[in-house]
Amino acid sequence: MSDRVHVGLLGCGNVGAALVELVQREGDAIEARTGLSLAVSRVAVRNVSRERPVALPDGVLTHDAGAVVADPGVDVVVEVIGGIEPARHLILEALKAGKPVVTANKELLANVGSELFEAAEAGGVDLLFEAAVAGGIPLIRPLRESLAGERIRRVMGIVNGTTNYILTRMSEEGASYADALAEAQSLGYAERDPTADVEGYDAGSKAAIIASIAFGAEVVAGDVYHEGIAGVTTADIEFAHRLGYEVKLLAVAEVDDDGAVGVRVHPAMVPREHPLASVRESFNAVFIEGDAVGELMLYGRGAGGMPTASAVLGDLIDAAVNLRRGTSASIGVLPRARIRPIDELRSAYYLNLDVLDRPGVLHAVSGVFAEHGVSIRSMEQEGLGEEARLIFITHVAREADVQATLAGLRDLDVVDRVNSVLRVVGDEA
Amino acid sequence: MSDRVHVGLLGCGNVGAALVELVQREGDAIEARTGLSLAVSRVAVRNVSRERPVALPDGVLTHDAGAVVADPGVDVVVEVIGGIEPARHLILEALKAGKPVVTANKELLANVGSELFEAAEAGGVDLLFEAAVAGGIPLIRPLRESLAGERIRRVMGIVNGTTNYILTRMSEEGASYADALAEAQSLGYAERDPTADVEGYDAGSKAAIIASIAFGAEVVAGDVYHEGIAGVTTADIEFAHRLGYEVKLLAVAEVDDDGAVGVRVHPAMVPREHPLASVRESFNAVFIEGDAVGELMLYGRGAGGMPTASAVLGDLIDAAVNLRRGTSASIGVLPRARIRPIDELRSAYYLNLDVLDRPGVLHAVSGVFAEHGVSIRSMEQEGLGEEARLIFITHVAREADVQATLAGLRDLDVVDRVNSVLRVVGDEA
Repeated sequence: MSDRVHVGLLGCGNVGAALVELVQREGDAIEARTGLSLAVSRVAVRNVSRERPVALPDGVLTHDAGAVVADPGVDVVVEVIGGIEPARHLILEALKAGKPVVTANKELLANVGSELFEAAEAGGVDLLFEAAVAGGIPLIRPLRESLAGERIRRVMGIVNGTTNYILTRMSEEGASYADALAEAQSLGYAERDPTADVEGYDAGSKAAIIASIAFGAEVVAGDVYHEGIAGVTTADIEFAHRLGYEVKLLAVAEVDDDGAVGVRVHPAMVPREHPLASVRESFNAVFIEGDAVGELMLYGRGAGGMPTASAVLGDLIDAAVNLRRGTSASIGVLPRARIRPIDELRSAYYLNLDVLDRPGVLHAVSGVFAEHGVSIRSMEQEGLGEEARLIFITHVAREADVQATLAGLRDLDVVDRVNSVLRVVGDEA
Repeated sequence: MSDRVHVGLLGCGNVGAALVELVQREGDAIEARTGLSLAVSRVAVRNVSRERPVALPDGVLTHDAGAVVADPGVDVVVEVIGGIEPARHLILEALKAGKPVVTANKELLANVGSELFEAAEAGGVDLLFEAAVAGGIPLIRPLRESLAGERIRRVMGIVNGTTNYILTRMSEEGASYADALAEAQSLGYAERDPTADVEGYDAGSKAAIIASIAFGAEVVAGDVYHEGIAGVTTADIEFAHRLGYEVKLLAVAEVDDDGAVGVRVHPAMVPREHPLASVRESFNAVFIEGDAVGELMLYGRGAGGMPTASAVLGDLIDAAVNLRRGTSASIGVLPRARIRPIDELRSAYYLNLDVLDRPGVLHAVSGVFAEHGVSIRSMEQEGLGEEARLIFITHVAREADVQATLAGLRDLDVVDRVNSVLRVVGDEA
């Protein structure tokens, strides 16, 4: 016997339309497997008269999102509007009314996730958000369930497809950052205003959500240190290749033995043998290090209507099954994380600087490193006419000491400019 | 308030001892997160007096596994004995008694999984087995839950760490198969009798379980076509590199549009850009292709006490939480899969043969391909004194036609021997 579950959909853009299509296409298979018949019964959109890529019965579309949430005929609410308001308000209303919510909204979760988790806990209903991080890749459910008994130490992800596409073009074709960005824009991988992607804000929201779930403590977008990829040059990438690395934009969440959480987004040099180094084009991947499980990586499509809708649908089926069983799986109330300042990061670093090519320069430069206790692992020098380019890889050092070293280097008369600084993934201590 | 859940553990080898250690070490953190206090209260072992790497209170160890299952104080049963009997009988008893079961037993599931799934369904209790395939990698839960609405087309996995270690040594150091196997044995990666690994039986059991879960139809170990890696030579790997491939032992499960399921294990040439090609050493990875989600890969440690115990612990927490909530998530009763015979496989092939180096040979050889409708995509010839070596990559062809071609080639006077045949991953049609 079938059991009909009525879905109220808030938003019908790329992901929403793909979800409607998937529910229509796979509905029979889902019913055969779960006994549940999913029906998208109400869909709230801003513009009711706009043409949609999917066919919806008359009367399903409305511009009144609040009415969809309040409709007693709606069992589960799916939110794919994005942004903080009105999504926050609508989700809180649904949870208060005892309706499970599935959302793909990273911005919302990275800013007011705790408020939503508490409301879900209070209402005794599911709040599921697999699609909010790394699109179609199963990540949140493995973190919450498969790794429920695991002490996770660090999660490093390539969680922004746009920047990974740009870096792949730079790495494989020697394209400049500007050309690779323009290509990504022309293919629709990058927005006209690419700030959110290239400056690391999008990845930062995802890093906050990952850290919250992996470490069971509230981390918000504002806690995340970030640097973008606009400063990465083809010269950096050439050096990286020569030294056995690829350059990737990483979102890193890690926890110290004393429970302090570090969360950061920045370009980094990743050793070629590391599984993240082979993640090409617009693919995403999340690398997890745990005490017992060792190293895990989850790889796939981090964006796009269909992959994201696939993750929403998995959550929707889960929420519907739980609803019918009268159960739910809440995150609970998360304590606020103690955030480790970026100054306390310990990492190896790559530094690229142009100096005057004359006697004593290397002595002066290396003196600044020594003064701040930053130990050099390897150095190479390249002549450039009047100038020389110096490339350093340091041993593991404190971020604050490296920043002091950089300030000291910039103060030297013989240093013309610091071209780039990249953190190096490897033998962190 | 804490709720104590008593675990009966069947078997205390590598994985069992690691589980006891993990429960002891992470118990407080698990309790803080879930409110459940896990206690390993009874442990059944063959030899009670043998020394164990973990400390267990007096009276916990017993040689009577049946008594552990029947003990009214045991809430959840964890089976890590391996093999079919007595594991099958003990698990059926537990399920009948309404006790959830967590097992890491691939052989059992690949042979009598359906019987166990039915017993779990009848008893209304969980039967969880994340650890049975690909060790610590979250695979079964993502397939069952995250991808619940996904139409999965194909799953390709590197699911045997021993053979991947051997192939990595051959690929990266040019080691012979025999030397790489001996090295794996000396490191404890391969058994003294390596048959189960190198002939693909271990991977075959995992392929059967993956196919059953991915396609919702019963596939057993006996349904799996398999070829091992003993015939792979360093020459094959050199050719693979030159042509842009790595050689990997793949477990492949795929479903046709008409619902026929193909399941096979064999060495294959994998394009270097494919994510599976970068899976090195003893790591495992499973690559999933779905209609909506596109391509996914899940990567990690496929074996070892701690990674496997981590997966068992995730299941154990899940089972304990469900038990306390009075719910369970069964696989249900799976219909028998319709198995596609290997003859109907469509793939590209690599063929390596030695022929006499004289006029007309290529004409005779290519005639055999043409006779059976196998179209050649590329060919190269290498002189070897009196002989020549011919390397062919075919377009996608039917397995039966390729086998007929091979029979025809072996019948030719000018063909001295067929050295190797490998399937090629790529543009399958």
